[in-house]
Amino acid sequence: MKMTKKVYYHDTDCGGVVYYANYLKYLEEARTEYFCDKGIDLKKLSQIGVMFVVRRVEIDYKSPAKYADTLDIFTQITRKKNVSLEFFQEVKREDKVLVSAKTILVSVNKELRPASIPQDIIESLSK
Amino acid sequence: MKMTKKVYYHDTDCGGVVYYANYLKYLEEARTEYFCDKGIDLKKLSQIGVMFVVRRVEIDYKSPAKYADTLDIFTQITRKKNVSLEFFQEVKREDKVLVSAKTILVSVNKELRPASIPQDIIESLSK
Amino acid sequence: MKMTKKVYYHDTDCGGVVYYANYLKYLEEARTEYFCDKGIDLKKLSQIGVMFVVRRVEIDYKSPAKYADTLDIFTQITRKKNVSLEFFQEVKREDKVLVSAKTILVSVNKELRPASIPQDIIESLSK
Amino acid sequence: MKMTKKVYYHDTDCGGVVYYANYLKYLEEARTEYFCDKGIDLKKLSQIGVMFVVRRVEIDYKSPAKYADTLDIFTQITRKKNVSLEFFQEVKREDKVLVSAKTILVSVNKELRPASIPQDIIESLSK
Repeated sequence: MKMTKKVYYHDTDCGGVVYYANYLKYLEEARTEYFCDKGIDLKKLSQIGVMFVVRRVEIDYKSPAKYADTLDIFTQITRKKNVSLEFFQEVKREDKVLVSAKTILVSVNKELRPASIPQDIIESLSK
Repeated sequence: MKMTKKVYYHDTDCGGVVYYANYLKYLEEARTEYFCDKGIDLKKLSQIGVMFVVRRVEIDYKSPAKYADTLDIFTQITRKKNVSLEFFQEVKREDKVLVSAKTILVSVNKELRPASIPQDIIESLSK
Repeated sequence: MKMTKKVYYHDTDCGGVVYYANYLKYLEEARTEYFCDKGIDLKKLSQIGVMFVVRRVEIDYKSPAKYADTLDIFTQITRKKNVSLEFFQEVKREDKVLVSAKTILVSVNKELRPASIPQDIIESLSK
Repeated sequence: MKMTKKVYYHDTDCGGVVYYANYLKYLEEARTEYFCDKGIDLKKLSQIGVMFVVRRVEIDYKSPAKYADTLDIFTQITRKKNVSLEFFQEVKREDKVLVSAKTILVSVNKELRPASIPQDIIESLSK
């Protein structure tokens, strides 16, 4: 799935480029849209006690994005397990990969303890 | 009350200065420390259903702060009413005022409705 | 002009609502889109030494926005002067005004000193 | 080296915990203080055309930090190479490790191209 995103002033730092932590905001937005695209509403899920929390991120910064750039964020799931999902995401400007990231989300219950991902969610993600 | 704060990369934008919204983070931190200094623990207060929410901010940007600057944030209460508090705050670099702000906080209950500020809080703030 | 914006996790705080400083990011984005809509490219402008910096913000927080809300940000210019522009902006969820703000931008040169707004910019803004 | 940091409202999200991207801000602050502690002023360095940019982060989120927590961020360099430095950092609340991260910084010149780390910097880091 592809999400398009424009870089605003608040995304940048005094080095003149997007601040390294802000890509994690873009990645969160893109994962949310990925779930949404599969018919999964994270807000409703959290109300019935199913939440996904980030367990690990590996992120490579290859080339900087700048103010007023238009970026495409590509999101896919590369592994589905009982309590976790692995995402692979790329931030591109036109054909150039600026940033790539692998993120592991863990499904947790209201007490923030790991819990199996509901079967219908797994099925929605497989569509 | 004075709080000292160093400017890091994540506070700045590609204009080379502190991003205008980030001063509101500094102001929040300084108000929290002000309450703390008066013996008021905002976390405990919220657990008994008393919260302060920001109702209005008037902020003047006079001169920019830059990366690696050390700033002093001065905080005082200029008005105490039944359900609201008015703060006046200044962000200085040495003797120079960079930013000044007037902020109105409203006391709310768990349903986020305005509620009288508890008397002991008013008393603590008057010390 | 209207800009639509979805609220993500990174916009919220542990009070369960959009953090008060983050509305200033929304307002910046909406002003940028306003300029863009008038044919004004802020990045190109800055390259010829014309920049707009925020001089003052008055912002009223009337009702909170929450995670996954879809917000509309309405932007208009309410005053044009030789070196400054005054914006009035409203953040709405459907018909409800959540936040309103008046922002004064000042035109500055490369040395960050006030400078007249170029005549063609004034004309573009009047269209 | 240890840096102490208090969690404020703006660090948290509506899940009630510190937002995952914000730890990268803490890590940046702690690395800056680490350099500072070794007598290295990153601002002055950048003025002579030596900058460090983040090339890769691996971060593990083990347990969440909450509003008003006091955190300790421990920073050490685990590898020094010709153009890169590898940091290992831990965010702790008392004895508990909440987050650990490995970060690779690359030394770049004004054109943002990789460049050898100056010998005196290597020496300062070895003290």
